[in-house]
Amino acid sequence: MICIIMGSESDLKIAEKATNVLKEFDVEFEVRVASAHRTPDLVEEIVKNSNAKVFIAIAGLAAHLPGVVASLTTKPVIAVPVESKLDGMDALLSAVQMPPGIPVATVGIDRGENAAILALEILGLQDEKIAEKLIEYRKKQKEKVMKSDEKVRNMFK
Amino acid sequence: MICIIMGSESDLKIAEKATNVLKEFDVEFEVRVASAHRTPDLVEEIVKNSNAKVFIAIAGLAAHLPGVVASLTTKPVIAVPVESKLDGMDALLSAVQMPPGIPVATVGIDRGENAAILALEILGLQDEKIAEKLIEYRKKQKEKVMKSDEKVRNMFK
Amino acid sequence: MICIIMGSESDLKIAEKATNVLKEFDVEFEVRVASAHRTPDLVEEIVKNSNAKVFIAIAGLAAHLPGVVASLTTKPVIAVPVESKLDGMDALLSAVQMPPGIPVATVGIDRGENAAILALEILGLQDEKIAEKLIEYRKKQKEKVMKSDEKVRNMFK
Amino acid sequence: MICIIMGSESDLKIAEKATNVLKEFDVEFEVRVASAHRTPDLVEEIVKNSNAKVFIAIAGLAAHLPGVVASLTTKPVIAVPVESKLDGMDALLSAVQMPPGIPVATVGIDRGENAAILALEILGLQDEKIAEKLIEYRKKQKEKVMKSDEKVRNMFK
Amino acid sequence: MICIIMGSESDLKIAEKATNVLKEFDVEFEVRVASAHRTPDLVEEIVKNSNAKVFIAIAGLAAHLPGVVASLTTKPVIAVPVESKLDGMDALLSAVQMPPGIPVATVGIDRGENAAILALEILGLQDEKIAEKLIEYRKKQKEKVMKSDEKVRNMFK
Amino acid sequence: MICIIMGSESDLKIAEKATNVLKEFDVEFEVRVASAHRTPDLVEEIVKNSNAKVFIAIAGLAAHLPGVVASLTTKPVIAVPVESKLDGMDALLSAVQMPPGIPVATVGIDRGENAAILALEILGLQDEKIAEKLIEYRKKQKEKVMKSDEKVRNMFK
Amino acid sequence: MICIIMGSESDLKIAEKATNVLKEFDVEFEVRVASAHRTPDLVEEIVKNSNAKVFIAIAGLAAHLPGVVASLTTKPVIAVPVESKLDGMDALLSAVQMPPGIPVATVGIDRGENAAILALEILGLQDEKIAEKLIEYRKKQKEKVMKSDEKVRNMFK
Amino acid sequence: MICIIMGSESDLKIAEKATNVLKEFDVEFEVRVASAHRTPDLVEEIVKNSNAKVFIAIAGLAAHLPGVVASLTTKPVIAVPVESKLDGMDALLSAVQMPPGIPVATVGIDRGENAAILALEILGLQDEKIAEKLIEYRKKQKEKVMKSDEKVRNMFK
Repeated sequence: MICIIMGSESDLKIAEKATNVLKEFDVEFEVRVASAHRTPDLVEEIVKNSNAKVFIAIAGLAAHLPGVVASLTTKPVIAVPVESKLDGMDALLSAVQMPPGIPVATVGIDRGENAAILALEILGLQDEKIAEKLIEYRKKQKEKVMKSDEKVRNMFK
Repeated sequence: MICIIMGSESDLKIAEKATNVLKEFDVEFEVRVASAHRTPDLVEEIVKNSNAKVFIAIAGLAAHLPGVVASLTTKPVIAVPVESKLDGMDALLSAVQMPPGIPVATVGIDRGENAAILALEILGLQDEKIAEKLIEYRKKQKEKVMKSDEKVRNMFK
Repeated sequence: MICIIMGSESDLKIAEKATNVLKEFDVEFEVRVASAHRTPDLVEEIVKNSNAKVFIAIAGLAAHLPGVVASLTTKPVIAVPVESKLDGMDALLSAVQMPPGIPVATVGIDRGENAAILALEILGLQDEKIAEKLIEYRKKQKEKVMKSDEKVRNMFK
Repeated sequence: MICIIMGSESDLKIAEKATNVLKEFDVEFEVRVASAHRTPDLVEEIVKNSNAKVFIAIAGLAAHLPGVVASLTTKPVIAVPVESKLDGMDALLSAVQMPPGIPVATVGIDRGENAAILALEILGLQDEKIAEKLIEYRKKQKEKVMKSDEKVRNMFK
Repeated sequence: MICIIMGSESDLKIAEKATNVLKEFDVEFEVRVASAHRTPDLVEEIVKNSNAKVFIAIAGLAAHLPGVVASLTTKPVIAVPVESKLDGMDALLSAVQMPPGIPVATVGIDRGENAAILALEILGLQDEKIAEKLIEYRKKQKEKVMKSDEKVRNMFK
Repeated sequence: MICIIMGSESDLKIAEKATNVLKEFDVEFEVRVASAHRTPDLVEEIVKNSNAKVFIAIAGLAAHLPGVVASLTTKPVIAVPVESKLDGMDALLSAVQMPPGIPVATVGIDRGENAAILALEILGLQDEKIAEKLIEYRKKQKEKVMKSDEKVRNMFK
Repeated sequence: MICIIMGSESDLKIAEKATNVLKEFDVEFEVRVASAHRTPDLVEEIVKNSNAKVFIAIAGLAAHLPGVVASLTTKPVIAVPVESKLDGMDALLSAVQMPPGIPVATVGIDRGENAAILALEILGLQDEKIAEKLIEYRKKQKEKVMKSDEKVRNMFK
Repeated sequence: MICIIMGSESDLKIAEKATNVLKEFDVEFEVRVASAHRTPDLVEEIVKNSNAKVFIAIAGLAAHLPGVVASLTTKPVIAVPVESKLDGMDALLSAVQMPPGIPVATVGIDRGENAAILALEILGLQDEKIAEKLIEYRKKQKEKVMKSDEKVRNMFK
């Protein structure tokens, strides 16, 4: 079970990059909207009551949501900084520069799909089926690149 | 009453820039250490029980403390971003780039004294004595600059 | 009474984010256009003659307006840096990095609404009605997030 | 089992922040030096032969090591960007901005201890003892902050 | 012979800036797609089997491809950082900030044509015909500027 | 006489911001296109043969043109950095960060009009008519702001 | 006559880089300390009463002084941004990014000597002796470089 | 033959990183000091008269030297940006962001040794002995890393 929390409904597109991957892997997940600043209680309620093994927190601007989630659990928390102002540099630094003791696992700006894959890599340590699917997934990625390679190669022959 | 919260004891020097000003103005204050991530409950307890009119939150790195304080009160919250990594740019952006609805009043990097003066300007709206002292304080600043001006002017005559 | 000064008519959209909030709170305000560089006298005239309790200064590029306003009053001055070049980084740093003694309360880039709310938080210290409305306003924000949460939650069930 | 790989012996100090935490948790780990650019084969050998569940890759400058490790495994890979030039911004962006499909879990600049805690949070999903110790560890962090709070509070009474 | 490798098919437009120049110079080249992270083996295969004298590696985000190519050969490797997020600053720093021992010759963001010209300058050291054509090419550039100069000059007469 | 040199015809729009001001002031000027890198000789020829009192150099990217012009004359050289990549930060730093001994007077990114006004301020030191017109020009700017002020003020009454 | 204004006595070292050059050129100058924020009236008094032909304004942080001086005169104003926080990037952007209509001639961070030379280049347009000395000064710079060249050349022979 | 030009004697330390490598490879080189701005004629004289196959240009601040050298030759030009202000970001962007047509091969900030190795990789295309030594050099680098690996590995056993 993976719990995806986004700071605002406007982050939905980034969240769907994650849910698309999770659906492909047939892994259970829930998607929530909760703001670290407007609804701190809701964030706490979600995190404390969730039976998720991994949390994915998606937020832009001064992206405090991942850090706030991390302060409420000792489960792994993955941050997806969202581009909104300053090319997303504000969200990236707000997510990644956590103080000693409370880590947040930050992936690239707007990289919802990578948050999902990282979560799956974590679950895959206990779940052989997910682990196998990840290897399969990589193979497909590889094949896609190799097809691109063939196509482009011929284009310039 | 002003409540100063710093994210870690290592921010003491910046906090003292603020307390020195507040002492000079004879304004009551308390100084607390509470981490948004390591002790979210303590932050909540401090903010909810404080009878402060203004909060000053001092923090470095992914400086979530000001935003977390702001999420717990509708009193004005002043942020002092602290230089620790990346010249303090991480703390500045984490403090100032708050989402719509929950403002944080951010002052310059390491500018504890300015946080105190801003708090006094706010209190001065209700307290004639503070308001007068602020005008006095500006005069002294002005005189100090004018003395510098005289000194430097003569240096190059 | 709140006085909103923008450095140029082109900042109107950001100013309206502020005035919309202030109208909702039924708080008196005036809106002025005055350039720190093209009309320093007008800035001085506005600030010195205004009976505003809080000033909101909105400006882009080398955003000197907030600092210039702050140099003319010991009332709280709130800065809204406006994105124009360099993603608004120039305006942010010009506003927030004030020298010791003259603070400016900076909110996020283009965050006119947050400047208004911060001003209301300051007025709310003296005005019970504003203070209550702020709590109400937060509740509405919370409810909006919770509706988003419900909607998104169901979307992925 | 956790495998820590640093790009150069000069990263030892950051690695020790991680090993100190892991020793405290009595978790098995190995520490390796392997350069993504000078010894790509050694990196491959280490990653392919390791029975580690989680990899921690520590590197400065154009920090490719975490990404290269991630390209060789579907186990979780944690990156610690190291400050060397440009305040560590080069290492941070080189680590975190991974393309779709190959995530790297990036923690803050020079934050070796957080990489270790994140690794433990991942292992804790399968290992009750580690999970309990993490909760204990948080408590100790909390107590440390609370002692700081008491100390500082009294300092200003 | 010049080997152009791009990290993803989406970099094709930048690659064509390079191939257009190479066609103009009648120099043999091949164009490949290979991802440092998704297909490290393909990168290795391409680099090890290529009889190219110079490699051009084109990549965005955490642009590891140029560094990975450089780790596999002692032939000159030219990097073209591609703008994708953060205005291309992530790709630029990931490409240029290589550790001691393994250089990458980085050209400007999205500057595919300059990568080609640099490659030709290198080949021109051995190939008189290319060297002469480069001088010719510069002359044409010069003439183009001089025509612009004449045109603009008259525009304002 | 003012000599405007742009690094490429694509900078024409920025140059016209300058020429529009100069026409308004009835000051003689010439506009040239010359690239510091593609036509260093043309730059030298223009600078050495020009009877301009002030040079305005307009360039983007690694904007060397202003510095190269400055190396060829002891007349004042004004730089206009042009936004092309990296929001114009590359051009700004390439223009302004000149080494000791060879200054370049840099104005804001894309600020062609300000380069012209600065040139006029310099010429105005010798030419009473220009000096007077500058004061007139400021008055008009002031009036424009004051009209905006009146308009906006009434909008919110 | 050149008027040097620094925002604070702490900028003295940068001012002396300028005065050393001016002394070498036997050009009259005055040096003043005046803060745009703490003593706006003093700034106005200095600028309005000075018979300077060129102003040099030296300031760090949110360096408003150059812009404020420029708003008070139509004489050329040269800005020297001073490194204090954020490597001087705050001062650079606050100085250079002036709005249309009020230019400031910005030189490099901490480049007091270049501000002086630029001022001399401006004065040299009217004063043959200064113009000649500038050519002399360049020659000396050139000779110094050529001596360095000879020395270093022999070092590696 | 490799020609190393540094913009100022203060860059000597970075130049020596390059010369140490070249001495180790027994490759002929000359070292010159020439400023793009103070001695443009000297730069031209050096470049036009040199029989170097590759140029290495070392410069800080607004590092125009590499671009100016590149404008004078169609031989490959390698740039080493030097850290002086702004962590070397000014020099990096001034070097790497060259316009279309005139490439500069930029290596990392202060990376004199990598400039030398890149030059050797270029020469190695024609000179079998250099090519072999480069492979040897890589092996030594590899061995050094492997020794570090063994040492660190045992340290934590």
